[in-house]
Amino acid sequence: MIRTDLAVEAREMRGRGVAGVESRSEEKEGVTVTTVEITSPEGAEKMGKPMGVYVTIETGDLAEAEARKAASDALARELGLMMEGKDCGHVLVVGLGNDRMTPDSIGVNTARQIFVTRHLKEYMPEEFGSARTVSSVAPGVLGTTGIETGESVAGIAQRIGPTLIIAVDALASRSIARIGRTIQLTDTGISPGSGVGNSRKELSRATLGIPVLAVGIPMVADAATVADDAIGMVIKEMKDGAGDGAVKLLQGLEDNDRYALIYEALEPNAANMFVTPKDVDAIADRAAEILRDGINYALHGEKYQIFY
Amino acid sequence: MIRTDLAVEAREMRGRGVAGVESRSEEKEGVTVTTVEITSPEGAEKMGKPMGVYVTIETGDLAEAEARKAASDALARELGLMMEGKDCGHVLVVGLGNDRMTPDSIGVNTARQIFVTRHLKEYMPEEFGSARTVSSVAPGVLGTTGIETGESVAGIAQRIGPTLIIAVDALASRSIARIGRTIQLTDTGISPGSGVGNSRKELSRATLGIPVLAVGIPMVADAATVADDAIGMVIKEMKDGAGDGAVKLLQGLEDNDRYALIYEALEPNAANMFVTPKDVDAIADRAAEILRDGINYALHGEKYQIFY
Amino acid sequence: MIRTDLAVEAREMRGRGVAGVESRSEEKEGVTVTTVEITSPEGAEKMGKPMGVYVTIETGDLAEAEARKAASDALARELGLMMEGKDCGHVLVVGLGNDRMTPDSIGVNTARQIFVTRHLKEYMPEEFGSARTVSSVAPGVLGTTGIETGESVAGIAQRIGPTLIIAVDALASRSIARIGRTIQLTDTGISPGSGVGNSRKELSRATLGIPVLAVGIPMVADAATVADDAIGMVIKEMKDGAGDGAVKLLQGLEDNDRYALIYEALEPNAANMFVTPKDVDAIADRAAEILRDGINYALHGEKYQIFY
Amino acid sequence: MIRTDLAVEAREMRGRGVAGVESRSEEKEGVTVTTVEITSPEGAEKMGKPMGVYVTIETGDLAEAEARKAASDALARELGLMMEGKDCGHVLVVGLGNDRMTPDSIGVNTARQIFVTRHLKEYMPEEFGSARTVSSVAPGVLGTTGIETGESVAGIAQRIGPTLIIAVDALASRSIARIGRTIQLTDTGISPGSGVGNSRKELSRATLGIPVLAVGIPMVADAATVADDAIGMVIKEMKDGAGDGAVKLLQGLEDNDRYALIYEALEPNAANMFVTPKDVDAIADRAAEILRDGINYALHGEKYQIFY
Repeated sequence: MIRTDLAVEAREMRGRGVAGVESRSEEKEGVTVTTVEITSPEGAEKMGKPMGVYVTIETGDLAEAEARKAASDALARELGLMMEGKDCGHVLVVGLGNDRMTPDSIGVNTARQIFVTRHLKEYMPEEFGSARTVSSVAPGVLGTTGIETGESVAGIAQRIGPTLIIAVDALASRSIARIGRTIQLTDTGISPGSGVGNSRKELSRATLGIPVLAVGIPMVADAATVADDAIGMVIKEMKDGAGDGAVKLLQGLEDNDRYALIYEALEPNAANMFVTPKDVDAIADRAAEILRDGINYALHGEKYQIFY
Repeated sequence: MIRTDLAVEAREMRGRGVAGVESRSEEKEGVTVTTVEITSPEGAEKMGKPMGVYVTIETGDLAEAEARKAASDALARELGLMMEGKDCGHVLVVGLGNDRMTPDSIGVNTARQIFVTRHLKEYMPEEFGSARTVSSVAPGVLGTTGIETGESVAGIAQRIGPTLIIAVDALASRSIARIGRTIQLTDTGISPGSGVGNSRKELSRATLGIPVLAVGIPMVADAATVADDAIGMVIKEMKDGAGDGAVKLLQGLEDNDRYALIYEALEPNAANMFVTPKDVDAIADRAAEILRDGINYALHGEKYQIFY
Repeated sequence: MIRTDLAVEAREMRGRGVAGVESRSEEKEGVTVTTVEITSPEGAEKMGKPMGVYVTIETGDLAEAEARKAASDALARELGLMMEGKDCGHVLVVGLGNDRMTPDSIGVNTARQIFVTRHLKEYMPEEFGSARTVSSVAPGVLGTTGIETGESVAGIAQRIGPTLIIAVDALASRSIARIGRTIQLTDTGISPGSGVGNSRKELSRATLGIPVLAVGIPMVADAATVADDAIGMVIKEMKDGAGDGAVKLLQGLEDNDRYALIYEALEPNAANMFVTPKDVDAIADRAAEILRDGINYALHGEKYQIFY
Repeated sequence: MIRTDLAVEAREMRGRGVAGVESRSEEKEGVTVTTVEITSPEGAEKMGKPMGVYVTIETGDLAEAEARKAASDALARELGLMMEGKDCGHVLVVGLGNDRMTPDSIGVNTARQIFVTRHLKEYMPEEFGSARTVSSVAPGVLGTTGIETGESVAGIAQRIGPTLIIAVDALASRSIARIGRTIQLTDTGISPGSGVGNSRKELSRATLGIPVLAVGIPMVADAATVADDAIGMVIKEMKDGAGDGAVKLLQGLEDNDRYALIYEALEPNAANMFVTPKDVDAIADRAAEILRDGINYALHGEKYQIFY
């Protein structure tokens, strides 16, 4: 199955007209907000994603300060809406990924810039007594810790007792045009890779016992996806001039079959390769800044201006 | 009380001739190994450190590769001795400190270079089935997480069940000459700052239920200590020429009293200032390399050569 | 001589009432701006600094976003004033220092965030043809390059022909209270350490043939300075109770003599030690952000909002 | 034309049997060393590379310490051979690329670990008088400096007068299997991208007036290359079952034409995308370590063991 962390992309590929998958889009202050809702197990299976709400914020060119401001404002607003009705007394922000790899660093870099208050409320109760309790952790990746993220987070959560978790991560998109330009927010938690149903990997209400919101920005596409796109486009270009059998055959392949073919062709290396933009360092800096501002504002409101 | 993390320094200042504090020193392959043992509660109180064994490895100039090799070999050897008789079936290495601050980064940078096998033993049992189970974590500092180190580590340990913890940290020494040139190894765990007896800060058998070894290299001295040393030296220089009342008074002050006077004089800033060498970046790189090699070798033996 | 890079501190210690040293202070939009002008060779000798204008911007706590905005606005304004009457057709921003050492990293981190246009004007003349020509370089430190900064910059400048240089560096202050809270701006260039008159180290009109403005924020104090301050404060505390000969002697020492005494006492290590705050990583991040915004705004005006 | 920085790959694709392109391969101490020599302008045009000698060192899995040692030893040996007969009195090592992007960081990270002696020979003549003069610089990338690498290096070289330059850079390979596993060494200098004949970009004897050796390790492949490989493999798989016209057409396309088709299909994003392994951070660390050891040993011989 073609890999994408974005529900809007999964719907484009697989979810149109499927029962149990609803989608609506609206323009809010220069930003496009699309909500995909997966409401039935059938929808979840078709989409390859758990049931829940997926909000996508699409912005203009984040190289411009104004677009970044609009993006972080929209994130604060949508995150605030998703927090409504939940016990947000103690929010633990979890920064996923590896800060030594540029495209995978945004979770950790966001988490370390969250304005944490849990310790301040205890040590400086007069100044911070009325602030929301916020803590933050960046558990590191399996390859350097030997510990699944879900295990670390479960252990820490059991100890410090948060009422809500916000997990922040770099995502993979199908389209290279969405890299660094889309924010996804969901109430389903995070199930990295093949991790759905694997309680050691998963960060979700099922595994942690409290609601888990997840926020991310796509920073990479997988190599096989890019190859697949290329083939699709080449076929399209060739079609007019050479509409014979083999092209029809290629066209006739289900998307997933063609992807599988490519994926196998690229093995053993493809699974461990990703595609990323040449200026990913600047894009990652901006992404972490937007996530930091959006989350801090959602958690602390106007006071964030003073704190930070 | 003058701050030092090194038992050899505490003994020089406070522990000579004290009952319950024993010390011996020997030369092993070009490296001086000093063992300070605190064997009674009185000794612990006098020394300001918990009862236990403190091994100090003093080396030559670590700018030379040969001295680094001797230092990491000595660390592997002494760590191996300290692990004897303990259940070392699953060792969790904890990297303390803040990797965004050069002198405080060595714990995190060591931890991320530990050869972890816990996941490999599960996923690749044929290759790694016979390796020791090793995992590693860098929990981050209170100021950016809102969570005491002791809380994170206790939560994770409860989840993954290590039989031994090795905590790695940057230390503070009294003498700026020891910065980057001394390794301390102890079986008492770590009680950061005022944390003795504070179960949320402490990493020790008392708080975690399993043995905690701690390894560190001094990277800073506190500012008041350096000022105090300077005053001591100035007084010594002035003594001959001007042996009158006030100098005698200054000399007459107990060391701790004089330090307290200076510490107060430098308030409110002194407590948050530290002294560090100008080439601390190179020193920190080397320190993490020695700790990495010494610990990996102690944990994996000859196989480390192949793994790493 | 007590080391400080700040003209306001040099004046406090040595320049009051000295002919050829003028100073005025004013409050501008919540920020204190002090201008020290050294107008004669005698003033320069007394102050230990070249003749020229030194503007100091003192702000509130930079942990607050509003204070940071005020600081970068003031920097943009004062830098704009200093650029007046100079040929600013091609401005080369030079980031000094070592980005691997936290307190010394702000020059490099500022330089890499300057909005450079020199290449864009050539490759995208329609979009950027009207922008000011700006380039930027971070030449690295002598210890890792073997090349004096003045040599690298002179070589590059000769090649690309800037009309003005803005050098950015971390400074050393006498007072630890000024660390991270003061911006100094001068039209004299930079003469690192013993570098005055050493054309291989110096960045100045004398060595480069074009005007050199220098901007910096103090990030460290030297260890001997802190010790000296401590002694001064201890003496003051002891004076009332014990006003006898030796204290009078200590008091009687010229400031510079006492500093020299301490400096020697701390040798050989003192010269290579510095004092810095424990949260220097956060302070350095903010300092680079303020310098980046102030300089970019001074160079590009309103357009910076769109570019960046 | 399909992009690769490796002469061995260019020869596989375009240079077999071409006059003016010679190749020989030998096994030396467990390492395969292939020498491609381009001896005529025709060969250069066919290969898309300047005339000169290209030595490729292919090693085993660099995750193993022994393979890294063999690789750095081979690099030292081959670099030594290439330095023979040249004036190596003052060697300037130039680290190219952007240290903020993991795969592009190895040039900068190697350069900053070169043992530089130029300043030591002057300041400590007794200790270092007999050492070779070595300096090092990392000029940064056009996007953050506004200055072409060739301009910075030419300016600095004119000032400090090296007799030989060794440029270190991350390379792009056609095959993702070569990423992190191949070292290329050439005496032709570096002509980044479309830079051949562009004196502002090029680092070569033609532009700098002294010999320029270049050393690099492939860290990325370009996205279109990977897509092209995938298509090639898909076609191969489909051929047997569906050997009709369109597949024949696809097969019939010249390699370069097919690549161009894909490249255009992926526009406008493809040119700015690269493919890199998921564990590129660990691979980059090892690559910089091998380059550091190989170059330092070639420059300083046995003394490097003592210096470093």
